[in-house]
Amino acid sequence: MSLRPFKLYTFPTPNGKKVTVFLEELKLAYPGLDYEPINIDISTNVQKEPWFIKLNPNGRIPVLVDTNRNDFVVFETSAILLYLQQHYDKDNKFGFDVASEANDYSEQLQWMFFGHGGVGPMQGQANHFFKFAPEKIPYAIKRYQDETKRLYGVLNIRLEGGNRDYLAGPGRGKPTIADFSIFPWVLGHAFCGVESLDEWPGVKAWVARLKEREGVAKGI
Amino acid sequence: MSLRPFKLYTFPTPNGKKVTVFLEELKLAYPGLDYEPINIDISTNVQKEPWFIKLNPNGRIPVLVDTNRNDFVVFETSAILLYLQQHYDKDNKFGFDVASEANDYSEQLQWMFFGHGGVGPMQGQANHFFKFAPEKIPYAIKRYQDETKRLYGVLNIRLEGGNRDYLAGPGRGKPTIADFSIFPWVLGHAFCGVESLDEWPGVKAWVARLKEREGVAKGI
Repeated sequence: MSLRPFKLYTFPTPNGKKVTVFLEELKLAYPGLDYEPINIDISTNVQKEPWFIKLNPNGRIPVLVDTNRNDFVVFETSAILLYLQQHYDKDNKFGFDVASEANDYSEQLQWMFFGHGGVGPMQGQANHFFKFAPEKIPYAIKRYQDETKRLYGVLNIRLEGGNRDYLAGPGRGKPTIADFSIFPWVLGHAFCGVESLDEWPGVKAWVARLKEREGVAKGI
Repeated sequence: MSLRPFKLYTFPTPNGKKVTVFLEELKLAYPGLDYEPINIDISTNVQKEPWFIKLNPNGRIPVLVDTNRNDFVVFETSAILLYLQQHYDKDNKFGFDVASEANDYSEQLQWMFFGHGGVGPMQGQANHFFKFAPEKIPYAIKRYQDETKRLYGVLNIRLEGGNRDYLAGPGRGKPTIADFSIFPWVLGHAFCGVESLDEWPGVKAWVARLKEREGVAKGI
């Protein structure tokens, strides 16, 4: 493959890491593919500046610009992962063919949406009330820590209860963008006050399994 | 089409309505397609019972069971919409072809994820602190009402600023599952204390436009 590097506007938050993890995995799997990370310092609100709002009206990192396809712009982490998988993971090493593997593709999507609407936003709120809020509000801290733990329990049903190594795919599954999209949040569990993953052995083993991967390690 | 009716385990919340709106639109567009709604009374936690957890380990409505495809189970609203669009909207009336309309498909996904990770969870938290929390916590009420308003502002950039009627598709766009997935939340704005949509004229007109549709009206 002879490709121009993607531009990735990002910052090393869990959402940023979802995409760098996948890009590093893609780089190892497909020589010639590369990306140029452009650091967006969210602590100074660069992502709210007019030039950035033109890229993503939501004013959030990460944003991908595909210089190989007329500078097509993609925002929302999960949409970026699906876009890259569709266009650049030609052998479906990290996902499934929409048409010929429709059910596996749907299960992968189901877990991606579970992470995107559940783990990410809820753990994000736990982070906020545990670390950043100007007042300590015990009700809100407990609400979001409890919900984060409940969501880890759901992942554990899938992983340990399902005798699986990865969230999607037949049998024990294979590592896909569904894993890459949820893993960076779970990895950062301590940040919101959830000290250990011991309660969810399937999740704990899954995190350890993913961390061992060269691409994942580089991406985080 | 000769189809068995889908089973839809649901309840008339914004998340439930996303799917009934789309199914009613599909019924009008494709005679022969139908669904059987099965009421899950979430006020009595039916969705946390073991038989339901087998369908959706997250214990949330809605869940679709496709009796035409070996009782394949789909959870997470947005994954249900994408599944139905792929398999049963053969003419892509409410979406785009992944391969031949890849960029429109990606834009539709971007807005679906924006709704799934933003509008839904944040407005849901606003509902909680405004209506349901046992204590009134001004900081949390303001946080989530403000975020809900900010997200409506992002939709307004896309709709009014973009001179569009719908969130995805070339030109002024066409009604797709991206609209159906966000609309039921915005429709319920008053529930979280956001009294009016006057601040976001593009969003207000978009809601009015969608409400006029026969399928949407039946679905809500």
